[in-house]
Amino acid sequence: MTTTANNSLRNGVDTAALFATIDAVRADPEIAKFRFRAVNKWVNGTHNESTIHGFYGAKQEMDHQAAWTFDADHPAVLVGDDNGPTPTEYLLHALAACLVSGLANIAAARGVNLESVTATVEGDIDLLGILGLSDEVRNGFEQIRVAFTLQGDDPDKLRAVVEQSRLRSAVYDVLTNGVPVTIEVDAG
Amino acid sequence: MTTTANNSLRNGVDTAALFATIDAVRADPEIAKFRFRAVNKWVNGTHNESTIHGFYGAKQEMDHQAAWTFDADHPAVLVGDDNGPTPTEYLLHALAACLVSGLANIAAARGVNLESVTATVEGDIDLLGILGLSDEVRNGFEQIRVAFTLQGDDPDKLRAVVEQSRLRSAVYDVLTNGVPVTIEVDAG
Repeated sequence: MTTTANNSLRNGVDTAALFATIDAVRADPEIAKFRFRAVNKWVNGTHNESTIHGFYGAKQEMDHQAAWTFDADHPAVLVGDDNGPTPTEYLLHALAACLVSGLANIAAARGVNLESVTATVEGDIDLLGILGLSDEVRNGFEQIRVAFTLQGDDPDKLRAVVEQSRLRSAVYDVLTNGVPVTIEVDAG
Repeated sequence: MTTTANNSLRNGVDTAALFATIDAVRADPEIAKFRFRAVNKWVNGTHNESTIHGFYGAKQEMDHQAAWTFDADHPAVLVGDDNGPTPTEYLLHALAACLVSGLANIAAARGVNLESVTATVEGDIDLLGILGLSDEVRNGFEQIRVAFTLQGDDPDKLRAVVEQSRLRSAVYDVLTNGVPVTIEVDAG
């Protein structure tokens, strides 16, 4: 976070740059086509790690400022070594982060000041599904709950900002509506 | 990774413990009800971070061995400060990690040896949706592709292990079939 005299900053969002970006996309919609990527390598047992670095967008291949790696594993109670969160917990994090990033932009664009935002996300899963012990239980979460606590400007405006974030969240869309996933295998 | 004389270890998976766990769940299905959790706090702008620590399972509240935190942000080209991956990249990581953790267990259970596993996951997203510039473009990924490269035992067995992992993946299920998400807001 840098101190700046930029008058278009609100909640740390540069609203002038945000509106300029939207105008640029409106003028050339090809800019808006992005492709994100994660490369996962198996380590041992249920332990594996993903690296996130490059992505395509604005008509070019780009890199994040660092190549971040994230360990995933199962906890001891699920016969793992607990070297990192479970994949399903990363999914909950992705949902929370998407809603919070979005609402910060939306609040700034609407001139609504934020003081604090916390989103607690919980998902219920019955492992009878993935353990193959019941055909009636699904493999994934049966439901996910998000609980927001916000402080800042007028509560009605804050609630409206959360609602608009839900309506424009990439992860919320994918989780609630589903997405086609294809899998290719090169086994040698 | 520890060196051990445990004869039930394959691919780093303790298959005896895995089968014992499945037997325990079969005897008492309540053990299988889990609740995972992530708590996200807004930092500044599109930058926020989630903490993953506690979860409920096997009839009790438990903690991972550490409270892990993960930064999420938008990259500079999307008017963020690039303090971490985008939420959508964490979603791709969650999918990759779930498939890889699962296939390691399945391979071990079937007596199939793994040497190396890499899963590259890509998702295509047109930002005209989340930027509110088109009603015909969805907010989330239009499609996700997973490309596996595996080495180990017989290629046909490796391909069958990937397929079974897909059939038993919690994250794959949620992404392809969707999940109900509820949002509550406490604004003050």
